[in-house]
Amino acid sequence: MNTSSPTRIVVVGGVAGGMSCAARARRLDESAEIVVLERGEHVSFANCGLPYYVGGEIAEAGSLLVQTPERLRAALDLDVRPGHEVVGLDAEAREVLVRTDRGEERLAYDALVLSPGARAVRPPLPGLDSSRVRTLRTVDDAVALREQVDGGARRAVVLGAGFIGVEAAEALAAQGLDTTLVELAPHVLPPLEAELAWLVTEELRRLGIAVHAGTGAQEVVTGADHDVVVLADGTRLAADLVVLSVGVRPDTEVFERAGVATERGAIVVDEHGRTSLPGVWAVGDATVSTDPVTGVRRPVALAGPANRAGRLVADHILRPHAARPVPQPLGTAIVRAGGLTAAMTGANRGALDDAGIAYRTLHLHPNQHAGYFPGADQVHLVVHVREEDGLLLGAQAVGTDGVDKRIDVLATAIRHRAEVADLIDLDLAYSPPYGQAKDAVNLVGMVGANVLDGTLRLWDARDVDEVLAGSLVLDVRSAGEVATGMLPGALHIPHTELRGRLEEVREAAAGRPVRVMCASGVRSAIAHRVLAQAGFDSASLSGGTSTLRAVLGERGAALLAPRVHQPA
Amino acid sequence: MNTSSPTRIVVVGGVAGGMSCAARARRLDESAEIVVLERGEHVSFANCGLPYYVGGEIAEAGSLLVQTPERLRAALDLDVRPGHEVVGLDAEAREVLVRTDRGEERLAYDALVLSPGARAVRPPLPGLDSSRVRTLRTVDDAVALREQVDGGARRAVVLGAGFIGVEAAEALAAQGLDTTLVELAPHVLPPLEAELAWLVTEELRRLGIAVHAGTGAQEVVTGADHDVVVLADGTRLAADLVVLSVGVRPDTEVFERAGVATERGAIVVDEHGRTSLPGVWAVGDATVSTDPVTGVRRPVALAGPANRAGRLVADHILRPHAARPVPQPLGTAIVRAGGLTAAMTGANRGALDDAGIAYRTLHLHPNQHAGYFPGADQVHLVVHVREEDGLLLGAQAVGTDGVDKRIDVLATAIRHRAEVADLIDLDLAYSPPYGQAKDAVNLVGMVGANVLDGTLRLWDARDVDEVLAGSLVLDVRSAGEVATGMLPGALHIPHTELRGRLEEVREAAAGRPVRVMCASGVRSAIAHRVLAQAGFDSASLSGGTSTLRAVLGERGAALLAPRVHQPA
Repeated sequence: MNTSSPTRIVVVGGVAGGMSCAARARRLDESAEIVVLERGEHVSFANCGLPYYVGGEIAEAGSLLVQTPERLRAALDLDVRPGHEVVGLDAEAREVLVRTDRGEERLAYDALVLSPGARAVRPPLPGLDSSRVRTLRTVDDAVALREQVDGGARRAVVLGAGFIGVEAAEALAAQGLDTTLVELAPHVLPPLEAELAWLVTEELRRLGIAVHAGTGAQEVVTGADHDVVVLADGTRLAADLVVLSVGVRPDTEVFERAGVATERGAIVVDEHGRTSLPGVWAVGDATVSTDPVTGVRRPVALAGPANRAGRLVADHILRPHAARPVPQPLGTAIVRAGGLTAAMTGANRGALDDAGIAYRTLHLHPNQHAGYFPGADQVHLVVHVREEDGLLLGAQAVGTDGVDKRIDVLATAIRHRAEVADLIDLDLAYSPPYGQAKDAVNLVGMVGANVLDGTLRLWDARDVDEVLAGSLVLDVRSAGEVATGMLPGALHIPHTELRGRLEEVREAAAGRPVRVMCASGVRSAIAHRVLAQAGFDSASLSGGTSTLRAVLGERGAALLAPRVHQPA
Repeated sequence: MNTSSPTRIVVVGGVAGGMSCAARARRLDESAEIVVLERGEHVSFANCGLPYYVGGEIAEAGSLLVQTPERLRAALDLDVRPGHEVVGLDAEAREVLVRTDRGEERLAYDALVLSPGARAVRPPLPGLDSSRVRTLRTVDDAVALREQVDGGARRAVVLGAGFIGVEAAEALAAQGLDTTLVELAPHVLPPLEAELAWLVTEELRRLGIAVHAGTGAQEVVTGADHDVVVLADGTRLAADLVVLSVGVRPDTEVFERAGVATERGAIVVDEHGRTSLPGVWAVGDATVSTDPVTGVRRPVALAGPANRAGRLVADHILRPHAARPVPQPLGTAIVRAGGLTAAMTGANRGALDDAGIAYRTLHLHPNQHAGYFPGADQVHLVVHVREEDGLLLGAQAVGTDGVDKRIDVLATAIRHRAEVADLIDLDLAYSPPYGQAKDAVNLVGMVGANVLDGTLRLWDARDVDEVLAGSLVLDVRSAGEVATGMLPGALHIPHTELRGRLEEVREAAAGRPVRVMCASGVRSAIAHRVLAQAGFDSASLSGGTSTLRAVLGERGAALLAPRVHQPA
């Protein structure tokens, strides 16, 4: 580009990536003219904060407006224009066509940065145009929802249990509404593994939210007094308000028409955010990126990567030879659900299966801090590692405390292409209120290394039927624990007695493999080592009954319920 | 070693590293005989939990006993012998000499693991043998202290303000004692940088603890009713109890006498924990390791590295060809002090200066989570990066929330030899209750990259006198902020007005360099960019007035106090 300034940089979209780009551009170049065109009324608003305003935790709508055009002009000499929608792009002429309420105008640029974001998906359902149905994408949406709440709405239906849907449902329930959350996928928070999502579902129910998973809305019937949401399974849900949050898709039609190359609707960019057109960059939810774990191409709609990409694109526009490449986002994400936190980084089981990557899955339930220190509670962890070498592929966690820390550490390790055994060596901060001498993340490394070198052999709760059919289940929990129920046909020997009772195991197994289990997988791993060294075909239940219950849901609870005739 | 089992592994020391080694050895080998010799009464006790028992947060002393010999026998078939002190080692004969209250006996081993830990340092001060003076290293120490507290002790003096000293002082103050904390070094928590330690000092004072830093105890005068601690500065402190926590030193005399090579009293080990004697390994506080950042050799007395080393040594004894090396510990550490957390990883300024490594220091004060979300509060960060390439060398943080997470992420990055700019690319979990779209750690990366490539030039609060003497100080805070005081001679122009008032700066500077400042370093960095591009010799105060106040302590407060005649 022409560096004999002054240069005009035009940014399309004044939230997250776009505004980061504009601000960084100014810090690099006082002489550039920097114009930010925002189709909405507000720039730099706190879109991730909207549900918390609806729920009342953020009291004032004004708090959501992180910046104003006036403040951005004063601090950074940015020319920020809300109410300016870009409706055309002439890359040849280096001009955009801008529509305002005063008509249309052309604006020339030297460098153009597209940050149009994503639009809420609106499925073709009858009745979605009801005035009681709205998305939660803008400050105006949030204000309108809060007004409905304050105006006496009593019943809410949230369609879609992704991050925003879960946050919206919690917010509405916190405001006292009878709230129902509907998710087409088999469980809430579809990117989360089923065994962790189950914990979130239980927590949402504890908050009084009715959860309907595995079914979708078929129709919204508008009445005089309220709407009725009709689900595919026949359920009819009366609703004074409906929040539609079934996903987003890149908002790129204008630019596609102008010749910007896209891939499944998302703008294709190179490692510096350049689009297919000269002088045009793009960032954020509207762009496609490559999953660094699976290699799959997909748009990532997250504020963090958008903000960072905006900054790096400004670097590339103004310092093309010194700019760092825009990193491929791992898709680390986090959500609060009542008293729980759920977070994830890297690839999940579905993504790994789709990509054909062979992996092992670890389940751990360590405490977030020393067990003897008040408030100790479990972090429920699921970690996937590459079978061939233990490369960390993805991690997820749910718990009341310490979840964000472990996922951030694991995201950092994945970014550095750590193998699971490398986690053993991490020097994480330990003192009783904060961790354990062997932190949850260190333990992941130890268990992972054991699994990979064969010291530990795991069986998976999802294979419980196969195990029940062909193996001896050996439950090594204490007598007190198994009084609440064991798997049908299980043999009970506390792990502390196993060494002296191996003959009982041999008789009961009668040549079948032995599948050991305990509450979390720690004691069964010790028992497995005893059995394996005594020559048994043995394996330890990954994650113990904690994981089994969560994987099997209601059925797991039933399988583990007390039976009148305790077997063996 | 002889692998035609059964093998006898003897472990000296039944806490942390020793017990980890024994437990891992059993999981690897059912046939081995594993004997743990512990000179004290308890094994596997929660030494890091002792101060919390003194303070009453941990109610029962029994909670501190994480394991008992009986439970270890039952679960892991370990032969754990408390009250067994090793007083001699004959490496030739592969025997240790063990003293119990029944006399002395010889015990043969195939493999010997030394985990003797460290002893409290007892400086040669008159009166330290008073019955009112004790260390806080064992369960018995903690029980005795708690009895003194429950028995009506009113005044406590804690000698030494390292981690244990700070925790002990907080515990005693929480129990209502008039508590004084004495530290010979210039500030509490000596490994922490002065500008962060100041925040801890302020917090301890808020808790009602009297802090005397920069002076040590000279004598303890024992009276009938109470003791008096006499400090070098003449202060006399009446005390019903005195906690001595001035450091620890490796407890290795017995093994040194037996020919185990040591370095400044700590056992020398190779990358698998092997000592200089065949068949003898060592782990934990008694061993010397190499600081992976500075290359300096020193013992590290931390539970985490000890536990992990114990496990890896068991691997090496039983699977010599498959064992991972014992990692060199970074020395990541954390302490709670009232409502604050202080944590550190890697090298500090002193260690870097001693090692002659050229570095830059970054100060940041970002919020731990979105500013618009309730409870937002600053994480005060100090990060050192290598001047030549930005390699992360060390990081420290103090704050009310989110400190442990940032230090663990930075420890993980340092372990992977990340450069500061790599932190820009970390995908950390963002949602308003947990972080910011640009997380505190991402911001460290951005500021670090700016400093290294010259986009940002910093001045350091420790150079304030030089700056006051030879530069124009430009304070770009708001009018409301500077009403509470500016540095003498400073020119005030809010950063939002700077572009239009550059001539004022030029006149006031009169050829001198311009040194910009604001509250945290964000606005002054923007102002610096404006000035630098306008041709000024400009630099931005690293960390702003927050850091300046903390670096200069009382003097910083005085320098920034309102003056009757506001300059210029």
